[in-house]
Amino acid sequence: MRIGILGGGQLGRMLAMAAHRLGLTPVIYAPGPGCASAATDQSRLHAWDDLAALDAFAESVDVCTFEVEHVPLEVVERVAARVAFHPNPSALIPTRDRLLEKRLLNNAGIPTAPYVDLADEEAARTLGDVVGFPALVKLRTGGYDGKGMAKVESAEQAVQAMRDLDAPCIAEGWVPWRRELSIVAARGGDGTIAFYAPAENTHVEGILRHSRVPAPHLSEADRLLLEAHTRRLVEQMDYVGVIAIEWFETEGGFVANEIAPRVHNSGHWTQDGAHCSQFENHIRAVASLPLGDTGSTGPSAMVNIIGQVPPLASVLALPRVAPHLYGKTARPGRKIGHVNLTADTDEALEALLAQTRAIVEAVTE
Amino acid sequence: MRIGILGGGQLGRMLAMAAHRLGLTPVIYAPGPGCASAATDQSRLHAWDDLAALDAFAESVDVCTFEVEHVPLEVVERVAARVAFHPNPSALIPTRDRLLEKRLLNNAGIPTAPYVDLADEEAARTLGDVVGFPALVKLRTGGYDGKGMAKVESAEQAVQAMRDLDAPCIAEGWVPWRRELSIVAARGGDGTIAFYAPAENTHVEGILRHSRVPAPHLSEADRLLLEAHTRRLVEQMDYVGVIAIEWFETEGGFVANEIAPRVHNSGHWTQDGAHCSQFENHIRAVASLPLGDTGSTGPSAMVNIIGQVPPLASVLALPRVAPHLYGKTARPGRKIGHVNLTADTDEALEALLAQTRAIVEAVTE
Repeated sequence: MRIGILGGGQLGRMLAMAAHRLGLTPVIYAPGPGCASAATDQSRLHAWDDLAALDAFAESVDVCTFEVEHVPLEVVERVAARVAFHPNPSALIPTRDRLLEKRLLNNAGIPTAPYVDLADEEAARTLGDVVGFPALVKLRTGGYDGKGMAKVESAEQAVQAMRDLDAPCIAEGWVPWRRELSIVAARGGDGTIAFYAPAENTHVEGILRHSRVPAPHLSEADRLLLEAHTRRLVEQMDYVGVIAIEWFETEGGFVANEIAPRVHNSGHWTQDGAHCSQFENHIRAVASLPLGDTGSTGPSAMVNIIGQVPPLASVLALPRVAPHLYGKTARPGRKIGHVNLTADTDEALEALLAQTRAIVEAVTE
Repeated sequence: MRIGILGGGQLGRMLAMAAHRLGLTPVIYAPGPGCASAATDQSRLHAWDDLAALDAFAESVDVCTFEVEHVPLEVVERVAARVAFHPNPSALIPTRDRLLEKRLLNNAGIPTAPYVDLADEEAARTLGDVVGFPALVKLRTGGYDGKGMAKVESAEQAVQAMRDLDAPCIAEGWVPWRRELSIVAARGGDGTIAFYAPAENTHVEGILRHSRVPAPHLSEADRLLLEAHTRRLVEQMDYVGVIAIEWFETEGGFVANEIAPRVHNSGHWTQDGAHCSQFENHIRAVASLPLGDTGSTGPSAMVNIIGQVPPLASVLALPRVAPHLYGKTARPGRKIGHVNLTADTDEALEALLAQTRAIVEAVTE
């Protein structure tokens, strides 16, 4: 079976490698050679708007998916009109627009931050009444890793932020969160749903730095609550594939922050800390195969490598580390790899995490 | 770092995928497209005797290895004269000649079956005095998976077998073995040695069908003995990389059967049942990086897929199975994939192994 993957970054690369393992043939479509196409001899490297190439690609595969939601929607829709496609492209739309995303979450009974559609400057001038201050003004579409947003303390600042961002925005009330968690789930073509253990995520400057599983001090009841929320959402979306939801944990409970309709950075630990990785489960779901066991093998963590690769020998000298490097050019702020850690106890994991972070963060740019 | 790999089969494929994960660039050299070249966009597909292509390949990589010992020796030697090469090509010679192999093992103080060099027919006529009957007449070079050998009961049969095989042979005494074990070890560029748990291997018609770890009823003392033997051998060979030794367990102790100077089918379980796989450890050793943890994560097994791929959905419906399919054309007797199994207890593993074998063997050709 030939599995088409739209997009040529590290998520596509790791999906391609999971497909290889299952004896499926990954076919990458991307605008140029990249770290995903390096992992297969079956790449189609053409512009997103090369419609003839895109159609030929669609004809050449049995089923298709995308690696990230940033692939142009019209590309996804064009391919999906020609070949089986998962997840359903319609599921993409709300996850590319913060306003629709909030509505989707609320419709599934999932709490979010209070928000207001900044349809015009009048809405910005009165947002304090709806969401209070401070508030976050965010681009409806296209923000990523902390970009495309501004914290505002007054109506005047909100209006200014709207003008600076210069594209449709929403405003969100400030959520006094204690920490961020995420849950990664897989839904098969037959409707089966499997959940990975929720991860606790630590960000710096809007970029995920490390995740840890199990999330410390997360009660069984809270884990089941996150699963129940996620289940309602994916069923409502009739979603097939792997999906991630980011959550803020607050004094008053959980608030959904973001939906990622794909394999997710906070699920990379599953490559070495779960019986079946998120990448393999996405491929299984897309190929209408039974899902694999999402159970954890033990305490596990993931440290992102950002900007620069640390001395590989120093990392590999640590016990039970699994580096996953993407073969990307180093550049400040760029995710170019991650290191997965496993241990037999939470204490051993904590110590290994500290050692790994010291090596990785010494060169982080 | 660019890692050259001579050979385009499944071992090269899995080595290439391990190199990708470490952010290294695998470059396959093989006589034609195959399952290894499918996993990288950096293949050089030329005949073994295309010396210009071979030299250009050697120039293009930082260090090189081979996937199997069947790569022509002159190819290995030519590349090793131009670029760093592990393991040392001289280590290859005895492992391609059963007579030299026996001598190498005995020189390292490792017991083997009694044997005699069938230098001429006179030697065949008198072999009963040295090794008794029944005996095995084997090609010195090139036998594989039970091919290139004959069981003989008399001097006349031995002479006939020599004539039939029509190439230099040795004769080995019959070893009344109870089972076959193998040990896979990795030796780093700095001389560090790490051992995987010995596997118990089951063959049918000379082809490995399944392996299981830990090998049932293997005492700690026996495991340490196998490690000590292996350590002496790899140090004597000044070996760098992964190596496997197959052993017969007999009434009177262990007898070494064969050395494989490479990653080995009986070590495929390490992909899912050990902290760092044999493939990653071979790449680490070849790239002069620290070795990874060879410890097991728990009971583990491997079932070879031979001749035909079973219905993938049936395999994937089992818990904690990890199929590794090679993307090779199905053909009777051909290894085209394997399934790794993990479990929390020996009993659960046993049950899962039975279920998996039933599915796989139903279509084995």
